[in-house]
Amino acid sequence: MATGFAWRQALPSLPLLEWGRRYDRETLMGDGVAALIVTIMLIPQSLAYALLAGLPPEVGLYASVAPLLLYAVFGSSRVLAVGPVAVVSLMTAATVGEHAAAGTAAYWQVAITLAFLSGAMLLAMGLLRLGFIANFLSHPVISGFITASGLLIAASQVKTLMGVKAEGHNFVDLLAALARQASNTHWLTLTVGVLATAFLFWVRKGLKPLLMRWGIGPKVADIITKAGPVAAIAITTSLAWGLGWREQGMKIVGAIPQGLPPLTLPTWDAALWRELAVPALLISVVGFVESVSVGQTLAAKRRQRIEPDQELVALGASNLGAAFTGGFPVTGGFARSVVNFDAGAQTPAAGVFTAVGILLATLLLTPALYFLPQATLAATIIVAVLSLVDFGVLKRTWFYSKPDFVAVAATLLATLAVGVETGLLVGVGVSLALHLWRTSRPHIATVGLVAGTEHFRNVLRHPVRVSPALLSLRVDESLYFANARSLEDRVNDAAAAQPALRHVVLQCSAINNIDASALESLETIEHRLRDAGIALHLSEVKGPVMDRLRTTEFLRHLSGQVFLTHFQAVAALTPDVLNGTATATPTTLDREPSHA
Amino acid sequence: MATGFAWRQALPSLPLLEWGRRYDRETLMGDGVAALIVTIMLIPQSLAYALLAGLPPEVGLYASVAPLLLYAVFGSSRVLAVGPVAVVSLMTAATVGEHAAAGTAAYWQVAITLAFLSGAMLLAMGLLRLGFIANFLSHPVISGFITASGLLIAASQVKTLMGVKAEGHNFVDLLAALARQASNTHWLTLTVGVLATAFLFWVRKGLKPLLMRWGIGPKVADIITKAGPVAAIAITTSLAWGLGWREQGMKIVGAIPQGLPPLTLPTWDAALWRELAVPALLISVVGFVESVSVGQTLAAKRRQRIEPDQELVALGASNLGAAFTGGFPVTGGFARSVVNFDAGAQTPAAGVFTAVGILLATLLLTPALYFLPQATLAATIIVAVLSLVDFGVLKRTWFYSKPDFVAVAATLLATLAVGVETGLLVGVGVSLALHLWRTSRPHIATVGLVAGTEHFRNVLRHPVRVSPALLSLRVDESLYFANARSLEDRVNDAAAAQPALRHVVLQCSAINNIDASALESLETIEHRLRDAGIALHLSEVKGPVMDRLRTTEFLRHLSGQVFLTHFQAVAALTPDVLNGTATATPTTLDREPSHA
Repeated sequence: MATGFAWRQALPSLPLLEWGRRYDRETLMGDGVAALIVTIMLIPQSLAYALLAGLPPEVGLYASVAPLLLYAVFGSSRVLAVGPVAVVSLMTAATVGEHAAAGTAAYWQVAITLAFLSGAMLLAMGLLRLGFIANFLSHPVISGFITASGLLIAASQVKTLMGVKAEGHNFVDLLAALARQASNTHWLTLTVGVLATAFLFWVRKGLKPLLMRWGIGPKVADIITKAGPVAAIAITTSLAWGLGWREQGMKIVGAIPQGLPPLTLPTWDAALWRELAVPALLISVVGFVESVSVGQTLAAKRRQRIEPDQELVALGASNLGAAFTGGFPVTGGFARSVVNFDAGAQTPAAGVFTAVGILLATLLLTPALYFLPQATLAATIIVAVLSLVDFGVLKRTWFYSKPDFVAVAATLLATLAVGVETGLLVGVGVSLALHLWRTSRPHIATVGLVAGTEHFRNVLRHPVRVSPALLSLRVDESLYFANARSLEDRVNDAAAAQPALRHVVLQCSAINNIDASALESLETIEHRLRDAGIALHLSEVKGPVMDRLRTTEFLRHLSGQVFLTHFQAVAALTPDVLNGTATATPTTLDREPSHA
Repeated sequence: MATGFAWRQALPSLPLLEWGRRYDRETLMGDGVAALIVTIMLIPQSLAYALLAGLPPEVGLYASVAPLLLYAVFGSSRVLAVGPVAVVSLMTAATVGEHAAAGTAAYWQVAITLAFLSGAMLLAMGLLRLGFIANFLSHPVISGFITASGLLIAASQVKTLMGVKAEGHNFVDLLAALARQASNTHWLTLTVGVLATAFLFWVRKGLKPLLMRWGIGPKVADIITKAGPVAAIAITTSLAWGLGWREQGMKIVGAIPQGLPPLTLPTWDAALWRELAVPALLISVVGFVESVSVGQTLAAKRRQRIEPDQELVALGASNLGAAFTGGFPVTGGFARSVVNFDAGAQTPAAGVFTAVGILLATLLLTPALYFLPQATLAATIIVAVLSLVDFGVLKRTWFYSKPDFVAVAATLLATLAVGVETGLLVGVGVSLALHLWRTSRPHIATVGLVAGTEHFRNVLRHPVRVSPALLSLRVDESLYFANARSLEDRVNDAAAAQPALRHVVLQCSAINNIDASALESLETIEHRLRDAGIALHLSEVKGPVMDRLRTTEFLRHLSGQVFLTHFQAVAALTPDVLNGTATATPTTLDREPSHA
């Protein structure tokens, strides 16, 4: 990613120095307003995602201070808002839950260690410019994973709506646990939770059109809409306090410690680190992909750019910051970044102001959240994550590309059936295997001359001239180990089937690279053809490929020649084709494999 | 592999029916002579490779009867000779040694089970047409693996030459064990072993030229040379008997049970099967790759062809045959197949005659091998496997392609340092990762018009005309998930750097496929460009790619157009370039990433 620009700067750079110099009053206004709105939005989100991760609610606030400050210093996006996000919180819960019981100090300590490892990995990847690793998460895999995660998260929150306890790292276990607990449902909690969910859905879908009908501008309407969760929290907290819901058995947030985020250290335990290594890597990559795609989308709107390797450094610093201040893994969030952008944030200073806002909330606001029903937080999560669920991708990939469909379906099913970590690994494995399978069967066309031109076309699609003494093959793929043998097979079969064959010409116009395996295959093909009295020729070899071939013995020993154009090859080897005396007689061997 | 020919036959077919019908006296002569020579060669090899695999010597003979008969029925190669081979025997020893102690009945039983699993996997892969799996073993990985295996095998035989016991699954352990045992060396054994080794090396290198100087034809000289091990066995066995070497403490083969191969069954134990699954798969794939490359090379010499999926079926049947007759994993061997071919074998009937020859040997010859020194067998193995060692591949790949060099070196080192199984897995992993890394950074050239022509060339290599309002990008790779984002980056950066930009045209002539991820990236690029007031156009889209794009929303919403040729695009969008009023001003962003 952006490897072409490595010469422009040494890492880590400080984007702060660039925008800091030009800071003025107007920018301050924009940043200040945006920060206020994002702070209001981030408080309930932070509490909710901490609970989703199995942590005390205040940990969500801690994770929304230092990371924002560090991102403002190192980040290359002007408007990205970092902090706890849904999918990463789910992955945190799945990982930490294997090492400690939720609600214990040990659990929090593992989460801190996970943030530390994830931060260290992101930082290392940034400094080593390994951002391309994120490319191995294909869009279908991400879509399948996000959809399945959304369903898992929503299902995990249903227990809070019902006021019961139910655990499970996959969808089936979760649903089974919920079914077992159905008789223990706390009906007041469920009623409040369902109403809060309905209210939030309405705010999301129905409020904005209503406000716009009332003459409010779309941007302002959008921002008011984003404050919906705050309204839900204010209303249900007041009711819980006024109507004594706590005494009726409803679970509330309760006492949140007031004060600055604590200074914490990760656990220095090699055995634990080894076990957390793979989950930390997956969390890092998923967080990075989410963050960079949001950042790029928003930067492009203002013709700005972000530097993926710099983003790795910034997210690494943010997660290290989270680890040392009692937080858990964070990344750039989609919804909050869009709100920040729409509200007029100009520079990362908005992030600094947001961090200050959250810090003030930790210091002053937490007593006010004492009576906040946990079901309300569950409702905000459910509404947020269900917008991530997109089954349409199954339909779209089914019609566009079956291998992509298989990758989506495999990721989705594995995530739901086994869990987030397995789901991601299955998705990456399946998409790589399918890609390799596809390129291992390259499209190889037997081509012939279009009469009266110098063009060659597939003998199966066009009426063309060929000679029984010459075989023209066009390979529509770079040659590498996974497909080199299929070229061998094709040439072998043709040589066996065409007794009059004297020349094979490979038209190399679509070959961008020939690796060492493919070079050996070409040598094998050449030897076998030579044994059978057939010469091998090449035509239209690209410059960089020719440069590499010149360093080898292959060209020196080639039984045939290298022609600049395919027409020159045919004109030199079988001129009768040009004069129309040769006839077009593709053999049965020219039938092509069907390609998905 | 050969997927294009699936319609021609249903599997499993019986090639036997084809060549059996045309069998005549002349074919019989050719097959008979070849079988005699291969039998003479195969007896010492079978004994030696059984010892290498940690099994009693007669097991090597058992593994050379039923598998040959079954290959003759199912195999598509006319001349392939199957049986125990060096690398597969080493892999068998490494695997079985983890489950039982060498020399015990339990050890033999695990080897039988391994042959059964490998046979079942090969058969299943053949019936499911999964032969392409073998493509994932790249030539560099195979070279590195074979070289390292040759060194490991040679080192493992040194203990027999020294007449001591020393175990170790990797090179370092083996050498250390040998060093510890140096003081226990049995000097008579070492002397005989070293002399036998020297004799066999001389036979291999010096005898053929000598025979040819004596006026013997090269083919006959070659066959005499291959009988060298038989001479070494005859001489040392006679000396051991005559000079009473056994009484002096030399290890001899001893009593080999006379009789038909026993009927055996694999162990039906799910836990054992699970543990043997990965090694069995690796043995299957390595055996298949070795066998198919020999088979194809020999078939091509006579313009015959072999069917890889049929070969899987035949090798599967051969290994199942080995499992049910007391054998161990087998495959098509290189040296013996070449001898079979050179000696004039015409049909798989030669294999049947060879099987009969080995069977007679098991019935009659084994008492004659009683005094055969084990050191002689070790010498035949050492000489055979050292010809597999090829460090030249390191040099060749270093100069041709650094990623291939890394793959060779990683495979070689991992095999020597850890063992055969890890070595292969590391090799496959590294070569896949490097391939993906390379294609994840596609060559994307900014192109401009060559004045006076309709051709477009890289702005960095040619004096061309460009316009500040139009960016022409040529992508030299199919677009898929691993490289889609780098196109996004390139376009984003260009849009940010070129304020006058109004049109981006992607020249798609080298794009053979666009997967769902790349399609989403194109949509993202289109949206971002549209937000910045820039239109996205495509040119020279290939037919199959266009067919797929037509099924999507992308083309309907495209802000620009799809042009048949890139020249038409530029002529329509920025005609000033054609008239020479625009100047060639590539920006700094046109600097390309360096490619390995």
